[in-house]
Amino acid sequence: MIDVQKRLDSRGIEIQRVGLKDVHFPFQIKMQQGTYQQVQGNVTIAANLPHHFKGTHLSRFMELLMVWSDKPISGREIKKLLAELCTNLEAAEAEMIMRFRYFLPVSAPISHQVGYLDYLSEFHGKFNLTNNSYEYYLGAEIPVASLCPCSKEIATFGAHNQRAIIRAKINCHPGKYLWLEELIGLLRSQGSCPIYPLLKREDEKFVTETAYQNPKFVEDILRDSVLALRSDPRITGFQVEVESFESIHNHSAFAAHQE
Amino acid sequence: MIDVQKRLDSRGIEIQRVGLKDVHFPFQIKMQQGTYQQVQGNVTIAANLPHHFKGTHLSRFMELLMVWSDKPISGREIKKLLAELCTNLEAAEAEMIMRFRYFLPVSAPISHQVGYLDYLSEFHGKFNLTNNSYEYYLGAEIPVASLCPCSKEIATFGAHNQRAIIRAKINCHPGKYLWLEELIGLLRSQGSCPIYPLLKREDEKFVTETAYQNPKFVEDILRDSVLALRSDPRITGFQVEVESFESIHNHSAFAAHQE
Amino acid sequence: MIDVQKRLDSRGIEIQRVGLKDVHFPFQIKMQQGTYQQVQGNVTIAANLPHHFKGTHLSRFMELLMVWSDKPISGREIKKLLAELCTNLEAAEAEMIMRFRYFLPVSAPISHQVGYLDYLSEFHGKFNLTNNSYEYYLGAEIPVASLCPCSKEIATFGAHNQRAIIRAKINCHPGKYLWLEELIGLLRSQGSCPIYPLLKREDEKFVTETAYQNPKFVEDILRDSVLALRSDPRITGFQVEVESFESIHNHSAFAAHQE
Amino acid sequence: MIDVQKRLDSRGIEIQRVGLKDVHFPFQIKMQQGTYQQVQGNVTIAANLPHHFKGTHLSRFMELLMVWSDKPISGREIKKLLAELCTNLEAAEAEMIMRFRYFLPVSAPISHQVGYLDYLSEFHGKFNLTNNSYEYYLGAEIPVASLCPCSKEIATFGAHNQRAIIRAKINCHPGKYLWLEELIGLLRSQGSCPIYPLLKREDEKFVTETAYQNPKFVEDILRDSVLALRSDPRITGFQVEVESFESIHNHSAFAAHQE
Repeated sequence: MIDVQKRLDSRGIEIQRVGLKDVHFPFQIKMQQGTYQQVQGNVTIAANLPHHFKGTHLSRFMELLMVWSDKPISGREIKKLLAELCTNLEAAEAEMIMRFRYFLPVSAPISHQVGYLDYLSEFHGKFNLTNNSYEYYLGAEIPVASLCPCSKEIATFGAHNQRAIIRAKINCHPGKYLWLEELIGLLRSQGSCPIYPLLKREDEKFVTETAYQNPKFVEDILRDSVLALRSDPRITGFQVEVESFESIHNHSAFAAHQE
Repeated sequence: MIDVQKRLDSRGIEIQRVGLKDVHFPFQIKMQQGTYQQVQGNVTIAANLPHHFKGTHLSRFMELLMVWSDKPISGREIKKLLAELCTNLEAAEAEMIMRFRYFLPVSAPISHQVGYLDYLSEFHGKFNLTNNSYEYYLGAEIPVASLCPCSKEIATFGAHNQRAIIRAKINCHPGKYLWLEELIGLLRSQGSCPIYPLLKREDEKFVTETAYQNPKFVEDILRDSVLALRSDPRITGFQVEVESFESIHNHSAFAAHQE
Repeated sequence: MIDVQKRLDSRGIEIQRVGLKDVHFPFQIKMQQGTYQQVQGNVTIAANLPHHFKGTHLSRFMELLMVWSDKPISGREIKKLLAELCTNLEAAEAEMIMRFRYFLPVSAPISHQVGYLDYLSEFHGKFNLTNNSYEYYLGAEIPVASLCPCSKEIATFGAHNQRAIIRAKINCHPGKYLWLEELIGLLRSQGSCPIYPLLKREDEKFVTETAYQNPKFVEDILRDSVLALRSDPRITGFQVEVESFESIHNHSAFAAHQE
Repeated sequence: MIDVQKRLDSRGIEIQRVGLKDVHFPFQIKMQQGTYQQVQGNVTIAANLPHHFKGTHLSRFMELLMVWSDKPISGREIKKLLAELCTNLEAAEAEMIMRFRYFLPVSAPISHQVGYLDYLSEFHGKFNLTNNSYEYYLGAEIPVASLCPCSKEIATFGAHNQRAIIRAKINCHPGKYLWLEELIGLLRSQGSCPIYPLLKREDEKFVTETAYQNPKFVEDILRDSVLALRSDPRITGFQVEVESFESIHNHSAFAAHQE
């Protein structure tokens, strides 16, 4: 059967990324404690396309994902997967982004009752076959509570507060990767108070008072997150954003930084 | 040219609604104050399809929308539009839903500085040609602040609060329609405190203290909204939901009711 | 500690549904073949609130979900969960909706290569403690390809086609529930051609030609879906919608029906 | 009243961007033909925060937006707005992104019937007060139809096709800005066939045959878009992505490039 994709192209344009997007796919993630979690990934996977080829063989991306559907996957495995992809497609570079919701058990602060808290997470790898280089990024969104210092200061009683999200994406020294649990652990206490899935009354008293005693602007949460990310020597760079879904407005306040 | 849609169908199934969905379309809305607002609607428009026709002529829906693109539209005009649609398509029933973001100027409580607050809104009409009957529904989503009575009571200081949304959809006595401004006006003060687009420090003090002095569960906001909706004799039925984006959790609390 | 929720309310309004919304939660689903699939549910769970209570104890909803987090869950288990909820909250009625992405292996038509196809699915139960009645609904969204009969007929060559989605929600005779696999199986061949996660060239030839030989309007897919749903005696009622993401427009065509 | 934001901060971190996000706001856009279009923007607006300030005065962002709510806004006006913002907040840099749906009348190819087609669009400006530099980006998403060359070649009849989107974001020589209409005009014919809001049967025949005679992979549409963007000397850089919502799969194919 004719292979249209392999035909020559004369426009002289090497395309940086060609591939699949919005692929829903089940994966196994190895957890820090040693067990595995089944997650439902939303995948973007791509390779560069040399200028002389008309098209990429897109079915091979899916074939490769299928090979990895039963094995635990993280930064190291994504490198292998992308190396195979490059060889398979005669491409010099390949990239993969997996976004998924990751569940961790979280205990209430006083009653210690346990619930599951979900964190939108991301594994992102870029591989270059020519120089065998690999960049790996780990991302997570951590919900926290933020309580406004200005509101607390000027009001005779009370202070407006709300849910906020710390979105962080880090890159690491090659091979010195953080667990998702570690990244989440660095950031989940940088708000005015952490968020919990299950709170009894004694817990609600605790989180209400904790937040009130710990007022923070999005700027404060951002700066404390920056300090936390700088404190881990394995992290070589990061971008971080804090978005606060203001309870007194219909829009968000945010702060963002990268280094 | 052959008209495939007009061919006979032998499956014997009259389809209740056939039409277009997710049509982005600009409309003019007449405001209560007498001026007009250009809105960007997301439209669903449909008619029933008698069992003997294979298909509907979908281009006619768009032609009809184009006729109305320059004229102010609301409940009465949607009735005319649907009557034309029924005649045009030889259909007995037709329905149209327009969802759009509606902007109203809102003054801060103390400084009186004005900003625009946006409300997701809905015009929804159902017309029956056979008995010339028409049902019309008006919907709006009103953001408010909610402050937890339990948290206030049990904490020594502070109380968790957050943005909440009151979603209401009403139907009215034929011809006795409420303005969107009236529906929003009935509900925007049912939370612990209204929400504002622009607040200076003196306003922030006011809204913080107002919310603290007016703690309400979603159940309370729901019940007060029910009382408000019952109080207008033009409203013959309604559904209302309050969703509170809990600042201490990663999920929402909600209450819903219809009558 | 004071129980604010248990306080008396004097507004005289019994609220139909109070509970949690947008709870992300991991569940086990029993598959038709006998194994289990870990899914990530988005949960709405609620109970009615008698008029004399000020509020519901929302933490109990989460406690109950935690009890069920390790056990396989489907229609029967949701009934038990809701019965416990009613007892626990002194409520007469309770309701739960779980939406999740369900993955099934699908073989390409000629090469038989296997990939995972994802279906947005829904378990929805309503329980009434007073008369011990239970209604259970099963929902699924099935992507298919649709090819336009009018376009094929009037064009000298080719025919516009596109992805479409069949959204169905059924209710069943008590205790005679369909597997998700059965509901998907009834509907996945009602388009112009099924959709596949992984297609080699010989498969692509097959699906292209199959769709071209099997042109269907959304109205046709809807009617064939209605016939398929009527054909299973366990199904006592259903609503079904077909939405086609038209390749020649920036909006969708749709048809919807319920009985 | 105390100004908490102005307090000194000792963490030594200058934050790159602090501001508002997800602000829905109505704007006037000047159209190429000389008239104005009211659009509903989703705005991100931010400035840097020097390391010695604890916080930004977020109300000033909204005050500034209000000043511009009645005047036509585009690249030049965003520069002025950002310059005012920098002065107002004692900030060195400021940035604003406005995303909105832009409607243009589009005539059917044969019948010439007119409908409105909507394009998700973006104005994005970055201003630096210190060196008075300004970068301006213009973005648009253009829906087109794509028809698969491989499918056409290997199938005896027909070819799978679908809606695709060309997402482009360009930057221009200072002061030599393109109209949105010009950017859209460069790209809307790079698919297998343009998309139309309103098509009569003679038009549908035309678009079906045009697409069939003009098969293009996402790679082809991407390369042709690159050539189109390179052809305008006012464009100094761009990023462009083509996403095709494959009719035979439940995921997208895509190609992306920037230079």
